[in-house]
Amino acid sequence: LPGDGLFAPLLVSDELAELTGDTAWLQALLDAEAALAGAGADAGIIPAEAAEAIADACVAANFDADEIGRAGRGGGNPVIPLVPALTAAVAETARTWVHWGATSQDILDTAAMLVAARAMVPLQRDLGALADACADLADRHRHTLMAGRTLLQQALPITFGGKAAGWLLGVLDARRMVVEARTSLTAQLGGAAGTLASLGDDGPAVLRCYARRLDLAEPLVPWHTARQRIAALGAALATATATAAKVCGDVGLLMQTEVAEAHEPGASGRGGSSTLPHKRNPVAAASTATASRRATALLPLLVGAVVAEHERPVGAWQAEWQALGEMLALAGSAAARAAATVEGLEIDTGAMGRNLALTGGILLSERVVFALAEVMSRTEASRLVTAAAARAASGGAGFAEALTAEPRIAELLPPARIAELLDPGGYLGASQVWIDRALAAHRDTPTDPAGSEDKDRSP
Amino acid sequence: LPGDGLFAPLLVSDELAELTGDTAWLQALLDAEAALAGAGADAGIIPAEAAEAIADACVAANFDADEIGRAGRGGGNPVIPLVPALTAAVAETARTWVHWGATSQDILDTAAMLVAARAMVPLQRDLGALADACADLADRHRHTLMAGRTLLQQALPITFGGKAAGWLLGVLDARRMVVEARTSLTAQLGGAAGTLASLGDDGPAVLRCYARRLDLAEPLVPWHTARQRIAALGAALATATATAAKVCGDVGLLMQTEVAEAHEPGASGRGGSSTLPHKRNPVAAASTATASRRATALLPLLVGAVVAEHERPVGAWQAEWQALGEMLALAGSAAARAAATVEGLEIDTGAMGRNLALTGGILLSERVVFALAEVMSRTEASRLVTAAAARAASGGAGFAEALTAEPRIAELLPPARIAELLDPGGYLGASQVWIDRALAAHRDTPTDPAGSEDKDRSP
Amino acid sequence: LPGDGLFAPLLVSDELAELTGDTAWLQALLDAEAALAGAGADAGIIPAEAAEAIADACVAANFDADEIGRAGRGGGNPVIPLVPALTAAVAETARTWVHWGATSQDILDTAAMLVAARAMVPLQRDLGALADACADLADRHRHTLMAGRTLLQQALPITFGGKAAGWLLGVLDARRMVVEARTSLTAQLGGAAGTLASLGDDGPAVLRCYARRLDLAEPLVPWHTARQRIAALGAALATATATAAKVCGDVGLLMQTEVAEAHEPGASGRGGSSTLPHKRNPVAAASTATASRRATALLPLLVGAVVAEHERPVGAWQAEWQALGEMLALAGSAAARAAATVEGLEIDTGAMGRNLALTGGILLSERVVFALAEVMSRTEASRLVTAAAARAASGGAGFAEALTAEPRIAELLPPARIAELLDPGGYLGASQVWIDRALAAHRDTPTDPAGSEDKDRSP
Amino acid sequence: LPGDGLFAPLLVSDELAELTGDTAWLQALLDAEAALAGAGADAGIIPAEAAEAIADACVAANFDADEIGRAGRGGGNPVIPLVPALTAAVAETARTWVHWGATSQDILDTAAMLVAARAMVPLQRDLGALADACADLADRHRHTLMAGRTLLQQALPITFGGKAAGWLLGVLDARRMVVEARTSLTAQLGGAAGTLASLGDDGPAVLRCYARRLDLAEPLVPWHTARQRIAALGAALATATATAAKVCGDVGLLMQTEVAEAHEPGASGRGGSSTLPHKRNPVAAASTATASRRATALLPLLVGAVVAEHERPVGAWQAEWQALGEMLALAGSAAARAAATVEGLEIDTGAMGRNLALTGGILLSERVVFALAEVMSRTEASRLVTAAAARAASGGAGFAEALTAEPRIAELLPPARIAELLDPGGYLGASQVWIDRALAAHRDTPTDPAGSEDKDRSP
Repeated sequence: LPGDGLFAPLLVSDELAELTGDTAWLQALLDAEAALAGAGADAGIIPAEAAEAIADACVAANFDADEIGRAGRGGGNPVIPLVPALTAAVAETARTWVHWGATSQDILDTAAMLVAARAMVPLQRDLGALADACADLADRHRHTLMAGRTLLQQALPITFGGKAAGWLLGVLDARRMVVEARTSLTAQLGGAAGTLASLGDDGPAVLRCYARRLDLAEPLVPWHTARQRIAALGAALATATATAAKVCGDVGLLMQTEVAEAHEPGASGRGGSSTLPHKRNPVAAASTATASRRATALLPLLVGAVVAEHERPVGAWQAEWQALGEMLALAGSAAARAAATVEGLEIDTGAMGRNLALTGGILLSERVVFALAEVMSRTEASRLVTAAAARAASGGAGFAEALTAEPRIAELLPPARIAELLDPGGYLGASQVWIDRALAAHRDTPTDPAGSEDKDRSP
Repeated sequence: LPGDGLFAPLLVSDELAELTGDTAWLQALLDAEAALAGAGADAGIIPAEAAEAIADACVAANFDADEIGRAGRGGGNPVIPLVPALTAAVAETARTWVHWGATSQDILDTAAMLVAARAMVPLQRDLGALADACADLADRHRHTLMAGRTLLQQALPITFGGKAAGWLLGVLDARRMVVEARTSLTAQLGGAAGTLASLGDDGPAVLRCYARRLDLAEPLVPWHTARQRIAALGAALATATATAAKVCGDVGLLMQTEVAEAHEPGASGRGGSSTLPHKRNPVAAASTATASRRATALLPLLVGAVVAEHERPVGAWQAEWQALGEMLALAGSAAARAAATVEGLEIDTGAMGRNLALTGGILLSERVVFALAEVMSRTEASRLVTAAAARAASGGAGFAEALTAEPRIAELLPPARIAELLDPGGYLGASQVWIDRALAAHRDTPTDPAGSEDKDRSP
Repeated sequence: LPGDGLFAPLLVSDELAELTGDTAWLQALLDAEAALAGAGADAGIIPAEAAEAIADACVAANFDADEIGRAGRGGGNPVIPLVPALTAAVAETARTWVHWGATSQDILDTAAMLVAARAMVPLQRDLGALADACADLADRHRHTLMAGRTLLQQALPITFGGKAAGWLLGVLDARRMVVEARTSLTAQLGGAAGTLASLGDDGPAVLRCYARRLDLAEPLVPWHTARQRIAALGAALATATATAAKVCGDVGLLMQTEVAEAHEPGASGRGGSSTLPHKRNPVAAASTATASRRATALLPLLVGAVVAEHERPVGAWQAEWQALGEMLALAGSAAARAAATVEGLEIDTGAMGRNLALTGGILLSERVVFALAEVMSRTEASRLVTAAAARAASGGAGFAEALTAEPRIAELLPPARIAELLDPGGYLGASQVWIDRALAAHRDTPTDPAGSEDKDRSP
Repeated sequence: LPGDGLFAPLLVSDELAELTGDTAWLQALLDAEAALAGAGADAGIIPAEAAEAIADACVAANFDADEIGRAGRGGGNPVIPLVPALTAAVAETARTWVHWGATSQDILDTAAMLVAARAMVPLQRDLGALADACADLADRHRHTLMAGRTLLQQALPITFGGKAAGWLLGVLDARRMVVEARTSLTAQLGGAAGTLASLGDDGPAVLRCYARRLDLAEPLVPWHTARQRIAALGAALATATATAAKVCGDVGLLMQTEVAEAHEPGASGRGGSSTLPHKRNPVAAASTATASRRATALLPLLVGAVVAEHERPVGAWQAEWQALGEMLALAGSAAARAAATVEGLEIDTGAMGRNLALTGGILLSERVVFALAEVMSRTEASRLVTAAAARAASGGAGFAEALTAEPRIAELLPPARIAELLDPGGYLGASQVWIDRALAAHRDTPTDPAGSEDKDRSP
């Protein structure tokens, strides 16, 4: 596709590029054909030697993806030319049994599920790593004060650990969607119109063996035009990508020159500009934001494919292939980027404190209102405090002074009490409870057994 | 919104319009405020009488949605003016306790969950009714022959019951997504920056009571900017809408003048044209297709909202409100339309048979290939049969004759065997097994207790 | 639609709500019917009195939009019940001539064009006002220094006038798209299948008169399923909405507590929070961002409608109606919001200066490189300056000191020269030229005659 | 990107793959760098020999796109590593002048415009060929009767030439959008923050020479974050793609087994299935439908990029690159597919006639109503004819008989008159006028000079 060498690496890691690339797809298509032949043998309708011969030929390196892709133009999908190519590659006696009983959609859908199953291993692993990194920050910075910001305005004090616990919560939710989608990846086999007619009475038995050989769930019924599961898978992938973008986006905002509370991990060449020597751009923020925009834009292709004409649609199904492949690549890569960003985050707690102090306590105005509301109406309290905040904001006095300057406040709240109220560390509510709960939920999330292999997220 | 009176009813039933309309939202917002006050009382931080006074005032009829909507422009959401309006509506002594501890997002998010919980009752009910209707067709027409169509071309014989079983499968999948989304609807309460700071140490207790009073799940931690659950909810709704459009879309295709195998239930005025007396348009097909296009287009707004700046975003969250409300309305209405369509479907089994016979058996060509492949290579068999099909298609002889005209075929397959092979009723593979499995899965799906009330899907 | 009273006003002004509301649509539908009858009379195929009688009845107040919308469910569009309702409302002798020759799509498409023509008057007016306001800022602040920010990092000095000139340029581009789309709004009349068959040979003459009466362009040929013009119109509207969001979004970023260089105009209640007395939220930023997200999400519905089956599609066309109406409302309202925001912008030039000075001149590092590059390789110059910037950023010395501390720099650039290089006012390049050009382009943009009426953008 | 070799060729022609591929992008990036150096020399700020040396090195073959793409991860775009690579490739004395004055966005945006300019040559050519082919059909089949179909139901007779004229009209509209977008492709040059600061007073002169050298329009002002033109370009591309899908989609519907009025051009292997020998699938319909779905889904990325933070955004701009490149590839390829489809369309006028006769004249019911309406109220006429149509549809009598069976009709319309009224050839209204107009508009459309080269649309 257009300019992939130049642009795709900005969004897709080498690992995911490999897991969703042509060779991976080709192997998955061939794995489906091999399993089909094997299942036929299991069910006793294909000679075992033929199945073995077919399986032996099902090696991606024996085929040329570009050639098959181009040859696919005639029939509208790459399986149509792959079948004769595979047939030609097996011994003459086995040829009859190649693709026995299947339609091209059976092979393509099954391959898509295999690619998904494989590409979701690092996705799940890196959502786990991202969760770990957020949990670590939540715990370590559970008492680090900073400004909570709503609509990009300072709102109330929070702790950086609480913020990280919020990230963690979202990551756990996204991960749950991903795990669920992954466990429901299902084999596809129905033949030309879903009836497995050419297999006579053996269809269900072949389907069972086929799914078992592929380590995919066995479908109740072929799902050629029951695509709800693909829509759900896509939603999980888009949500996971957006989750990575949320976390990295917050970091990008914290990196602003005027805020400077946190920075993406620095590495040689990271964030540089082609002309500005001092620049340190939020590249993970940009990369995950771009990935999330793309994944979100592609999702309607998968949901739209649910509306599939009769037993196979004209365009809806075909639009799934690249969209799903790309969404797998984007989600996994964005999760890896986000994990690396949070793991290596450079945090400036001093800047957090300085920024929190910028408004001289105005941030605590709600607290003053609640204190006053114990003895006057809250409406009145709010009116008085808002006026003091406005006076302080317009310069001159600090907020504490402005409060004291209001007789009705001064009467109720002596300066020491005001100072106490304006201490951000004393107005954190349930922050510690939330952090503990998020950490507990994280601990309770089972580790992905498939994720135990070595991490490789370079770059 | 633009021309809603004229256009929205085409897509939204009266029932859903009411459940997602202004009064419903307003009541949900007030229910959240009432529950907040009640929870404060439960936790002992608000006088019980104040909570009761507040709850008494929380009646939608006391407020004017249009006025509040307009007043919301200043602050950017309707809760900001609702709070003073509610405050003014309660007795003076209780006023201080209105909205105690909450931020506007707490009330809005919670109201959205309540609206969803209520609007999903008929959605779930009508997905159930749609499933029932599909199951009924699947069973009744399990032996009704028709053409299976892939890429809009006749492909192989299927039964209409098998087709309906395919619909059923998709409906059950969509329903599962909806049920899951509905059971995870969660209350929201975090205060201005998610810490519940103004409630001191009482935040967690208040949150628990609040969720319990609202019959919503209690969140681990406030989820102001952990919106993954909304994305998942939206995916379920868009998928449900698309599922309805898939079923009705198939019916619309079957209604084509040249196909005429099934028609949407006829009722006075249904499907009429403003000028053509003979027209009987597929209105449920059009309506659900439109609904599905809209719901699919709106979904990116919900997924995009996962990327939410800091503790409350500028635009991402705000884009959820109408999108979610509309998606609830569209999904429920489309499910109702589809259920009514399948329940009342007018089926012409004669037309199904005639259309299946249109090509004189060419549809069974795969079967002839497989029969020949027992004694020659499949490639060769396929070549011979394709040539015969081409000769038949180009006119002159029928397919049976064209097959017999080929000596190598004639030698192997006597005319009677060819006639047998070209009988569509004998080439249905696992159709009956699939139907049985789909029906069993349907039977095993627990009925929604909330869906037991009377159906009202008019229109 | 869901919760419109509560939510729509946040995005849609009263003016646009009226211009795209039910009454506006209903009147536009009736205007089309009246013009059709009048055109029939012009062409001599309908009695003039009948045409007059029909025109007299074509008053929105005579009909009930909600009732017609509900009655439209049967046939799938609101014109189908409107025709008999209109027929019933005219004198018996004229009834035969109601809707003479038209199909419902003719009336609906034409009405959509009329609604667009009317709603685009304030859109064009307010894009003009927005352009004026940007031009005013560009001129007044042509020398006001501030930091240019790329990827949210300070990059180089710019002037606030230059920034406003950039806004202006975008607004002029968007306006050009809007003007073009508006001038190509075209009447629709083709009868049931586009041939105007029921008008015999009189079709073209009737079409000409019809378009002339409606002040819409006459189409070459009915465009029932040639929807490219709607896609182009939608693109203009979405782009205009996004343009408003770009400008207001920048303001929202400038409003951040830590930046505080500009604020949306303050008015009582603007930007307030339901609990935080000190809050001043960027409400125009949020509102236009939300509007832009929605308009962008709806655009695929209009582009997707280009793929329209045969002579009228099942769903594609029907999805245009609400999408187009809403996009008109959003674009006009967002333009008005942005114009008001820029007109009343509160600018803190002191904060701009302070923020520009935050990094102690590091922002000018490129300039130092270019100065050094006159006598050494640029690569080497860049290396030295980057090192100095890193030393300065890591604390201790200022940037000037860090530069001087490097012998190879000190040798070439004496402190006075360094001070001169680090003066942001001397490194503005073509800023003034750009401003002059943007202002000239703005002056050369013809004022919209239709926009001369009184502005009413409340709120 | 995922599985490009296997899947992209189904949607993208070899020609467009080349014009939008890595080498094309790389060369465009280098062309921009060469023009920048040349423009510097033109303006007298760069030694002419240095500019020549740089230009000499600007050959894509000297660089490795994959390597640069990977190296781009650090800085977030491929220009950042390209600049040092190019610097290293030029003679030492010229190195200082590489990328002089530019920022990476200047080079990337300009390259995007160059890629667009080049990829739009075949797009424009093939839209022209598609228009020619539609015009040819419109003229040749101006009297070929067929059924006009609305909502997939037969509505009224049309001619196939009229249908093709409708396609033509849409193609001309799409082409106009494309031509306009192409003529407004504009160079980009602004330096790090848009001021061209490092060029001092020479910026505007360099910009002028730069644009002239690239044969792109000169911008008034750098448009780093004024992206309206990209949104408009994207809208033109998505609309062109959808236009191709509309035409091919109609062909796909006409290919249905039960309709069979037209077929995509047959070629060996075209439309085949992996298992069904008789299958002839609508592959151009599927391919253009898929392309249109993708292009439509990607468009929001370009419109969304209008909302760009400050002087360069975090994600919005970056999401343009692949989306724009792919949309160029999809539009050009879909136009070529559609042109080839219409050029080689296999038309069965006999089937058109047979299908038109299927309903025994019911299709002309509107005409009977209008004939009766000359002597009775149209409402009454409509009622009588609808009843007759219903009787005929429910079997038994033909429509003519059913009409005659109604005394009030029989009295007014003798059988011969009814026969005349039910002749579809006499009820075509302005069809011939529309065809003539569309053909005239086509003749008046200037041929693209750039499109005069040999067509190469294989496949």
